[in-house]
Amino acid sequence: MERLALIGVGLMGASAGLAAKKRGLAREVVGFSRNKSTADKAKAVGAIDRAEADLETALEGADFVLISVPVDAIAARVREAIKAPLADGAVITDVGSVKAAVVRELEGDAEVMKRFVPGHPVAGTEQSGPEAAKEDLFEGRHCVLTPVAATPKEMTQKVRAFWEGLGMSVEEMTPQAHDEALAMISHLPHLVAYALVGAVAKFDEGRALELAAGGFRDFTRIAASSAQMWRQIVAHNAEASEKALALFRARLDEIQKFVEEKRWDDLEKLFEEAARVRRSLK
Amino acid sequence: MERLALIGVGLMGASAGLAAKKRGLAREVVGFSRNKSTADKAKAVGAIDRAEADLETALEGADFVLISVPVDAIAARVREAIKAPLADGAVITDVGSVKAAVVRELEGDAEVMKRFVPGHPVAGTEQSGPEAAKEDLFEGRHCVLTPVAATPKEMTQKVRAFWEGLGMSVEEMTPQAHDEALAMISHLPHLVAYALVGAVAKFDEGRALELAAGGFRDFTRIAASSAQMWRQIVAHNAEASEKALALFRARLDEIQKFVEEKRWDDLEKLFEEAARVRRSLK
Repeated sequence: MERLALIGVGLMGASAGLAAKKRGLAREVVGFSRNKSTADKAKAVGAIDRAEADLETALEGADFVLISVPVDAIAARVREAIKAPLADGAVITDVGSVKAAVVRELEGDAEVMKRFVPGHPVAGTEQSGPEAAKEDLFEGRHCVLTPVAATPKEMTQKVRAFWEGLGMSVEEMTPQAHDEALAMISHLPHLVAYALVGAVAKFDEGRALELAAGGFRDFTRIAASSAQMWRQIVAHNAEASEKALALFRARLDEIQKFVEEKRWDDLEKLFEEAARVRRSLK
Repeated sequence: MERLALIGVGLMGASAGLAAKKRGLAREVVGFSRNKSTADKAKAVGAIDRAEADLETALEGADFVLISVPVDAIAARVREAIKAPLADGAVITDVGSVKAAVVRELEGDAEVMKRFVPGHPVAGTEQSGPEAAKEDLFEGRHCVLTPVAATPKEMTQKVRAFWEGLGMSVEEMTPQAHDEALAMISHLPHLVAYALVGAVAKFDEGRALELAAGGFRDFTRIAASSAQMWRQIVAHNAEASEKALALFRARLDEIQKFVEEKRWDDLEKLFEEAARVRRSLK
């Protein structure tokens, strides 16, 4: 590809830029950020060749537009991108953690749907910003694309090729199936981690925290994630998040009952089932 | 010290053996395990100089006895150790994750309480067995000792010197305070992790698990821990575990309410508080 335009160059966008440059996927990588210092940092870490303060200039002649902005802002950026002087056959995709809300907002716009392939590379860390970018962030991870009936096959194919080129395993599902699955494996764990750290901090004024060993640190690392970002993700996936919380609480209720009723054999059996599942993950 | 006797040479015991040998804390390290193949593995990984199949022989002439067996078996092992032909001034300690139950069981025995210092080096991984032993497992971690009124100061001092010699930061608290703090920072996270993995595995027959990224893997790593071990820990610390679960649920209730009522500002504030706490941990 001639020109990759990154709209948003935080952790995700800048990591995509680093990875695409390392693998020679684009002749030029152009970056746009609402925030000039973010764009400058992305250039400083080598994630983009050129930083543009003007969105239209950044998009000019781009073959591939990757939108990596907060969930709240995705639909507006897609609408702006579609009006820009892109290259012929250009495709637009995003990295948003929720998909149904964005698709709902955009699917009435036929022009948009001819070029826009909703996507979600399932990767990330608890950090944010271009200074946290890693060129191997996507390697070996899954990427979900959620094209709809109106999405041209060749557009989906271009996005698939991009993420596969970055070492991802790409699969397609409906926006709803994506949101429900991600509510379970990503949004719910964040809610739980925030709840847990909040509870521990309230206990004995947080003094117990000082004893915390590696297990607790690993377990709660995701609770250091951006509160603003996670607020938006949950707000845009409220229904699936509620369902996921309900499933989790049902399991927690069982555990609590077993503890209260001292049903240790049942507790161990429940632990063992979970341990077997967890050990089966690489 | 002349002779360190390790009763139980799984992850904790074998790691203590490796660390003590590396730092030259003991002239000889003797290991006992109920299970011959465990003792052989501990010898093979270099955690002990000598494996003994007979408990009394293992304890003969020992200056320092470290009991690293499942919580259920600690009190019985301490009682056996006290009757063995130990060296003069020998001290006995343990690594159990709960303290009040063991202290309650043993504190009526004056002979035992003259030598036994209840302890808990707060370290570990989700793995078990001597093959998972690491010589740096304890470095930079906290160790809690829970001596009671009857515990001679010089005995506590010996145990403190041992763990400090292995790079730990040692502090003393009551058995009850220890159990309540650990219920929050260790037992509760395990309960939550088991509940979470169990819930996710039930959702769409676990297919969502395949998408799981690094955050989920870190978050749920502790759910791979030994179910039998954690059953015993929770069973021996049921009251504090119930309290910890209640504190966690109160926080989770708030989150659930905010999601249901779409109170996104409140949700973000709650996230931000937790994120600030988590970021403050090294």
